[in-house]
Amino acid sequence: MKKINFKNKFKKFSDQWSPKVIAELNDYQFKLVKIQNDFIWHQHNDTDEVFIVIKGKMFIEFETELIELNEGEMIVVPKGVRHRPYSEEEASIMLVEPRGVLNTGDKVDELTAPNDQWI
Amino acid sequence: MKKINFKNKFKKFSDQWSPKVIAELNDYQFKLVKIQNDFIWHQHNDTDEVFIVIKGKMFIEFETELIELNEGEMIVVPKGVRHRPYSEEEASIMLVEPRGVLNTGDKVDELTAPNDQWI
Repeated sequence: MKKINFKNKFKKFSDQWSPKVIAELNDYQFKLVKIQNDFIWHQHNDTDEVFIVIKGKMFIEFETELIELNEGEMIVVPKGVRHRPYSEEEASIMLVEPRGVLNTGDKVDELTAPNDQWI
Repeated sequence: MKKINFKNKFKKFSDQWSPKVIAELNDYQFKLVKIQNDFIWHQHNDTDEVFIVIKGKMFIEFETELIELNEGEMIVVPKGVRHRPYSEEEASIMLVEPRGVLNTGDKVDELTAPNDQWI
């Protein structure tokens, strides 16, 4: 039985916008990602997506509002809802979503990251 | 679109071992629970279960080992694995598991809590 320490896992990588898998819960994955600057507008047509801020501050822009998320806060982005995450300074984020979800959703972009990068 | 602040949610209840739902991700639930002292041995036969320590320290006893979890740490308890959570001082924990999972798993006990208590 292996416990997972978020800080130690975040030390294992430095690339941004490239989610790393740290755990699986049935067919769901917990992923850590470092983010900074702008991501692209996209949506996930088949699933909701959870963002949890572990360190720092991030924003998620929706078509009708802008949400600021700080350490110790989370949000569920409902499936099919267009959103654009961004961060001014680097932030450390945990994502929870089903295995196989692409970070750029319905878009393919230079920011599209490979899935199943375990750390 | 509503963000969730863990600290604010934990202020909304004081009972222990009685998980409160704060969010749903598809058919999965994120639950907050305050724990202290001993829970019962149990297992979940149909699902894995995630524990994330938001504040404090907890232990999970398994048949062959004891895991200590501190703030910023998580563990996945695989389905079918007997375990017994406990905590010396009150700890604030987030659980992630499918909707409908009973806190005492395969046991019914005075610690069995009702499901779907949203806060």
